[in-house]
Amino acid sequence: MHESRPRIGIMGTGAIGGFYGAMLAQAGFDVHFLLRSEFEAVREHGLRVNSVPRGVLHLRKVQAYRDVADMPPCDWLLVGAKTTSNPSLAPAIVQAAAAGAKVVLLQNGIAVEDAMRPLLPDTLHLLGGLCFICVHREAPGVVEHQSQGAISLGYHSGPALGPDRQALIDEGVAMFREAGLDSHAAASLEQARWQKLVWNAPYNGLAVLLQADTRALMDNPDSVALVESIMREVVSVARAAGHALPEGLAEKMLKTTRHMPDYLPSMYHDHAQGRPMELEAIYAAPLAAAARLGVEMPRTEALFRALRFIAARQSA
Amino acid sequence: MHESRPRIGIMGTGAIGGFYGAMLAQAGFDVHFLLRSEFEAVREHGLRVNSVPRGVLHLRKVQAYRDVADMPPCDWLLVGAKTTSNPSLAPAIVQAAAAGAKVVLLQNGIAVEDAMRPLLPDTLHLLGGLCFICVHREAPGVVEHQSQGAISLGYHSGPALGPDRQALIDEGVAMFREAGLDSHAAASLEQARWQKLVWNAPYNGLAVLLQADTRALMDNPDSVALVESIMREVVSVARAAGHALPEGLAEKMLKTTRHMPDYLPSMYHDHAQGRPMELEAIYAAPLAAAARLGVEMPRTEALFRALRFIAARQSA
Repeated sequence: MHESRPRIGIMGTGAIGGFYGAMLAQAGFDVHFLLRSEFEAVREHGLRVNSVPRGVLHLRKVQAYRDVADMPPCDWLLVGAKTTSNPSLAPAIVQAAAAGAKVVLLQNGIAVEDAMRPLLPDTLHLLGGLCFICVHREAPGVVEHQSQGAISLGYHSGPALGPDRQALIDEGVAMFREAGLDSHAAASLEQARWQKLVWNAPYNGLAVLLQADTRALMDNPDSVALVESIMREVVSVARAAGHALPEGLAEKMLKTTRHMPDYLPSMYHDHAQGRPMELEAIYAAPLAAAARLGVEMPRTEALFRALRFIAARQSA
Repeated sequence: MHESRPRIGIMGTGAIGGFYGAMLAQAGFDVHFLLRSEFEAVREHGLRVNSVPRGVLHLRKVQAYRDVADMPPCDWLLVGAKTTSNPSLAPAIVQAAAAGAKVVLLQNGIAVEDAMRPLLPDTLHLLGGLCFICVHREAPGVVEHQSQGAISLGYHSGPALGPDRQALIDEGVAMFREAGLDSHAAASLEQARWQKLVWNAPYNGLAVLLQADTRALMDNPDSVALVESIMREVVSVARAAGHALPEGLAEKMLKTTRHMPDYLPSMYHDHAQGRPMELEAIYAAPLAAAARLGVEMPRTEALFRALRFIAARQSA
């Protein structure tokens, strides 16, 4: 362990927390994992990342905790849980935070920090991170990493002002880079969230609704048209909200996805395994923003309603 | 048999042809059934309609044909097959038609007569009928009739002009009424088709996409909102096409459906049994009309594309 390095807490391990936490631990950072259902498996067998591009990473000795009260105070708290569990996770985040800690929500969707902020004391920094990665939890303590891994960081709110914010972001970026990960500062966190939503809104929901992976969706002209039209709706709302998304963003994402291995987005896995889907962050919050701006998202809204019907039936 | 009565041919029996054909035969009309896969079952066991409102109707002796060449020339030809089989059924219709016969398409969707017309000689009358009925084929020669049964008739094209068209429609209406069925003349066949589509477009597709019957769709606020928004899109295109649909039509249909027994629309059965879905008549034709009129149907189009994705996967 490097004594001068920050102490990192991974809150809610799953696929994202497991992958980034394992990468940071392998790079020599002092990483502590708060685990719930996976605690026994990780304590006994460690944490395993089966990575297609990077090979197998098996972290045998994991600093794992079932109870947040046993964790040491952490300087960085990486939240890889689903947005749906943020309200119940917030007290543990507060408890695990060192003075002036940086809380980073490694989550998809819109306005997730806005919802988290009131649950944290003003003395904590709140950041957001967008993960460009194909990864899923295969079994307790086992993460499958198919491709990518880049991470984009932005400051949301907290005690830092002006250049201090940039310094904090740079510190986070440097930390991930030391772990061998492509990382950079987002010019605007909110814009980065909208930009990522251009991918997430179509593929997550359609994967559930049509029970299809990205390859199946890209191999059929009708699903491609659906994906494209939902992308266009997200882009138009993001632009109405003042975010200058890059020209040709949707086209570029379609092309990238066409060349990705067949991938099942996280919402597919959430649904298949009976976990709640992130409908609030990925659909309801953007639709609320669209309504405030007076912009229509009819296809996105139809997809959202179909998914909420599916969710209601599943939980019935 | 009443010698003076018209001879009726049922082309493509299934649920609609079976129900109306059996009702007409029971009323003493001279009815002839062209059958394909159901021929053996009907010849052996007759035709059975298990009707919730009317009880069991068992037609023991059925004038059934496997080959159209054996049928006598018919004055009325009722086409109860799916629209998807119209092109392949047209030669049999022509062959079974008496001189000046009336061909009635008892089918859902838009522009189905437009597609059939070029396949028939000009000497045949072409009419359309909208069936307001909850009915499905339970087994070969067995029809389950849940509720309703009204039929609305309109003249599409053919040798009759002016008042002669009305006289033909009235003849058809009288025929169904004699069989104990609520029947009336549609003021405009095209308008009647659009009006019925207000129900068919949402319920047929959503039943397949969400694997849900009408009760499940009406019990969830999200699916109700989806149904309503698709109804509104159909109404707006119908109005743009010049059809004065009644005020409050969507609201009335929602209310009626809420009070219907749990019903699986025909497209659900078609999909479940691996038959082609009527995507052309119920979605593609209305969407083409909307495009010509410059009216958007984003939710209907999204539903159509999702269904065509499902159809492509099923036939793959």
